[in-house]
Amino acid sequence: MNLVLIEPHEAAAGTRVTLHDVRAQHLLRVLRVGPGDAVRIGIVDGPLGTGTIRAVDDRSVTLECAYGRTPPVPPVDLLLALPRPKVLRRLWPQLAALGVGRIILTNASRVERNYFDTHLLDERVYRPLLVEGLQQARDTRLPAVTIHRQFRKLVEDELGTLSTAELRLAADPAADASVHAAASASTPSARVLLAIGPEGGWNPFEIELLHSQGFTGVGMGPRTLRSDTACVALIALVHDAVRRVQPRHEPG
Amino acid sequence: MNLVLIEPHEAAAGTRVTLHDVRAQHLLRVLRVGPGDAVRIGIVDGPLGTGTIRAVDDRSVTLECAYGRTPPVPPVDLLLALPRPKVLRRLWPQLAALGVGRIILTNASRVERNYFDTHLLDERVYRPLLVEGLQQARDTRLPAVTIHRQFRKLVEDELGTLSTAELRLAADPAADASVHAAASASTPSARVLLAIGPEGGWNPFEIELLHSQGFTGVGMGPRTLRSDTACVALIALVHDAVRRVQPRHEPG
Repeated sequence: MNLVLIEPHEAAAGTRVTLHDVRAQHLLRVLRVGPGDAVRIGIVDGPLGTGTIRAVDDRSVTLECAYGRTPPVPPVDLLLALPRPKVLRRLWPQLAALGVGRIILTNASRVERNYFDTHLLDERVYRPLLVEGLQQARDTRLPAVTIHRQFRKLVEDELGTLSTAELRLAADPAADASVHAAASASTPSARVLLAIGPEGGWNPFEIELLHSQGFTGVGMGPRTLRSDTACVALIALVHDAVRRVQPRHEPG
Repeated sequence: MNLVLIEPHEAAAGTRVTLHDVRAQHLLRVLRVGPGDAVRIGIVDGPLGTGTIRAVDDRSVTLECAYGRTPPVPPVDLLLALPRPKVLRRLWPQLAALGVGRIILTNASRVERNYFDTHLLDERVYRPLLVEGLQQARDTRLPAVTIHRQFRKLVEDELGTLSTAELRLAADPAADASVHAAASASTPSARVLLAIGPEGGWNPFEIELLHSQGFTGVGMGPRTLRSDTACVALIALVHDAVRRVQPRHEPG
């Protein structure tokens, strides 16, 4: 935990916040804080700041909070065919840590129906996993999450509202273009919407639909990666490309 | 399993190979092969090829094997501070799938001593995990693995023999240079040796020693990532940078 995230309702009462849960345990047991110590804090979807410890007992920590800048929404949105639950469990914190503005989970022909039954699609389950990733990465911007069972309706009718990204990239092992090349060809202000298919790939209809909606295929060379490895690798490549195209990305 | 890897001793007897283990089960139960079908095969550290099914029964599959080109050793070597066992377990197959020529595991001041006790450092345990990653990525090049308990001796005396990489990069959250910028500044023929520290980072002595041995610090921006996420992201960035600097990397 490199940052202690505070919920907006906890911060609403004033600059003094008392924590009683795992955050307090972490501060007491791992960081071993005492009165006067300062720790990095942030409000979920709000500003970063500094918390000065005012009081501790064996279960709780009281912080006096001072806030600064609000980090920008990460410049990458993710359209992801729903992976199997074991993979999704691993991905939630990693996606938040890498930084994505929005996670759009979708059905696809090669997604097994029972994947939609997992408790990992319950906000009460995935939100703490996203918060874990934000606390790792020192960010406050909780990815927005939506879940879609109709791929065609999503891509044709809803995607434009969900993501304002000008640049749309679809991971495709058969594509020659690299993420970097595709990003370089776009305008410097671009946000990127990155589509990643299921373990067996999009089917031909799905690929064609993505292309008809402005997605450009991008590849990572000849190696076929597991979908969680591919997600992490591709998001890192997109972040890197956006940073290079747009080196002074300021809070928006 | 996108490729069936065959051990050199299995291929030594001729072009006909009979499999009895999990590979046979996968071919029979998942791919449901029958006589006449062709599957992608490879020999560990040898050529890729095609296996034509000659016979099946409920436990075994006999293949007639034809071999082609041998893939190049991936142009990236990894110097990695030994992560905690849970992370290492996840990393083994991902590292082989992403493609690394050599994995050099090392002690560091912020590596806990008991991490060296894990069975995951036993070749009988990690080799199948590496093979799993190769079969995923359709590669035959098994990463060479060495384990070092003395960081200083390793870096000062042994690294030059272990890795022939001309370009040495050390992941450092404080560094401004990107992987791409550092790779662009190097000669096109460069292999890359990438150093990734423990969860809490290298200590100042270790960083200084790496710099004195020709490592350039590279960063990925302000986000602090978990070490397994950082490994995947950084290896992807290095591969991408090498591909761009050296677009026609041919088998060596």
